[in-house]
Amino acid sequence: MRMKPGMDLPHPPAVAWKEDRLMLLDQRRLPTETVYLELTRPEEVREAIRELAVRGAPAIGIAAAYGLYLGVRDVPEGDEEGFWQLLNRTSDRLGTSRPTAVNLHWALRRMVRRAESLKGKPLSEIKEALLQEAETIRREDAEVCRRIGEHALSLLEDGMGVLTHCNAGGLATAAYGTALAPLYLAKERGWRLKVFADETRPVLQGARLTAYELKQAGIDVTLICDNMAAAVMQRGWVQAVIVGTDRVAANGDVANKIGTYGVAVLARAHGIPFYVAAPTSSIDLETPTGADIPIEERPAEEVTQGFGKRTAPEGVSVYNPAFDVTPAEYVTAIITERGVIRPPYAEGLRRAMEEPSK
Amino acid sequence: MRMKPGMDLPHPPAVAWKEDRLMLLDQRRLPTETVYLELTRPEEVREAIRELAVRGAPAIGIAAAYGLYLGVRDVPEGDEEGFWQLLNRTSDRLGTSRPTAVNLHWALRRMVRRAESLKGKPLSEIKEALLQEAETIRREDAEVCRRIGEHALSLLEDGMGVLTHCNAGGLATAAYGTALAPLYLAKERGWRLKVFADETRPVLQGARLTAYELKQAGIDVTLICDNMAAAVMQRGWVQAVIVGTDRVAANGDVANKIGTYGVAVLARAHGIPFYVAAPTSSIDLETPTGADIPIEERPAEEVTQGFGKRTAPEGVSVYNPAFDVTPAEYVTAIITERGVIRPPYAEGLRRAMEEPSK
Repeated sequence: MRMKPGMDLPHPPAVAWKEDRLMLLDQRRLPTETVYLELTRPEEVREAIRELAVRGAPAIGIAAAYGLYLGVRDVPEGDEEGFWQLLNRTSDRLGTSRPTAVNLHWALRRMVRRAESLKGKPLSEIKEALLQEAETIRREDAEVCRRIGEHALSLLEDGMGVLTHCNAGGLATAAYGTALAPLYLAKERGWRLKVFADETRPVLQGARLTAYELKQAGIDVTLICDNMAAAVMQRGWVQAVIVGTDRVAANGDVANKIGTYGVAVLARAHGIPFYVAAPTSSIDLETPTGADIPIEERPAEEVTQGFGKRTAPEGVSVYNPAFDVTPAEYVTAIITERGVIRPPYAEGLRRAMEEPSK
Repeated sequence: MRMKPGMDLPHPPAVAWKEDRLMLLDQRRLPTETVYLELTRPEEVREAIRELAVRGAPAIGIAAAYGLYLGVRDVPEGDEEGFWQLLNRTSDRLGTSRPTAVNLHWALRRMVRRAESLKGKPLSEIKEALLQEAETIRREDAEVCRRIGEHALSLLEDGMGVLTHCNAGGLATAAYGTALAPLYLAKERGWRLKVFADETRPVLQGARLTAYELKQAGIDVTLICDNMAAAVMQRGWVQAVIVGTDRVAANGDVANKIGTYGVAVLARAHGIPFYVAAPTSSIDLETPTGADIPIEERPAEEVTQGFGKRTAPEGVSVYNPAFDVTPAEYVTAIITERGVIRPPYAEGLRRAMEEPSK
């Protein structure tokens, strides 16, 4: 593999740390404008997550980790009580920015545990360790993505048509993405994959982000509306579907961007394998099934005037869930950085969470 | 039934004749603006059809019928040769405005046959008959819609959730619509149906037109993005799907707005009946199967900047078919003004086209 974490990104990074501040690529303005938010307070980070300036389960986790550091870095040396209170309060606050992605909680827990492991040390040391931990989470994510890409590539073949939904790409992670990682690796190998990107209403992450980053990388990508996926499959143009996830339940049910479940049903009806790329940080053994995953509902305006222009009658009722749950029975395989998990998932997921990386 | 054709429309009519001109409600500007185009030349009508100012298979047929009259009304008395040449040329020209809806050809053929039945009469008489024929096509369409509504209602029950795609409503026809007709009748009966309207990318006929006309009529309608239909079905909120059609092939394959096929597959997977409302003018026994129906592809800009704002990278490849074909095996029943047709469709459709209205 010639892919090197942190190098040769075909697009600007979603999350970066620069001197004393968190830099977030404002993804609401892509693909037409490349603007970074420069954040110094955890409340700004929370807002950026809520408002989708940064999105994608792994990137949200990374941003929240830095956000937690920002929350405690100004506590004066010696104010132990203030530090631990603020750490927990900031963690709770960041943890409620979005409800579905479990990586958020995973990253915050990891940060708090790191701090707790140094309890009793000077605060300056703990703070420095927290910044380093956020850096580590970011760096590890790129490595995790690379490994997911390698495992996923073993399921694909040169010449295939691959359909993806939403953006589980470099912009959703530290680098390369989860679902899109194998597409970058395939490109390096000289394979010709033909990628179909669902535009992914209402926020158009597929059109604005996936089409953008794949095109930047010189990968053959065709943008379609979500409701065209069935017609594209019917024509025989798709040999594999691969998507990301915000949370995998212990039984293998998968929460991901709204529309994913429909794509899974269509894939099944057309005999196309449906793969979920999931870093183990997205696997939540404490959530027994998909029914236990909280599903965020977002404002009606995303649907009625998502593009600065009203496209639906005033006052119309809208249902706007941000995610849906694909039952495990529709999932052909779950691809983690530790390998490819096949049904039955309850056992496979549990084992993956115990085993070291392979 | 208290529904009376031409009366109590909850919204402005899509097509009307006023003194000497064709009035087309410019549906591109709904729901925020109610503006009529006033057309006096067939080329303007063709453009209005191509550019989706008027859309919906029955409404396109009606508009084209008036357009054909506009094409010949100024031929001087006595110029027989000029008249017939122009009639055929205008018919051919209008017939190529959009390729998929067969009602367009049906209406034009009916107009030409009407003229031919009067061959030898003074041109003024033939012209007057053509205007009357266009009026008749329009009036009959309202009556056809009413009957489709009655037959469709026999398949629904009070309290049901009904999902529809695109707009096969009053705005797509002379009045009431095809797929939406039973919803208006149900409302008159005091039934409480809960309607889900797919927004229907890329042109958003569901958001802009279906949500608009149902809301105007006081019907309980909830707008969703196309990719939310699966989640809504998964929750058990939908007991029937009903859509319109641009052409039904002799074997029962159904062409309709892109996304319809996906909805049909999802309905099947959730055990929900999938109904197609089709005036017999949409049934084309000369087209053997769906594979023989021409599928219009429309400009990439509808997808990349459909909201007046670029939402995809410059130069990205786009696949933008305006329609798809739902194989007959996914269609629970086809509802015509002459009754409900069940599989096998080849026989049922042939019989329906032979029988008088019932």
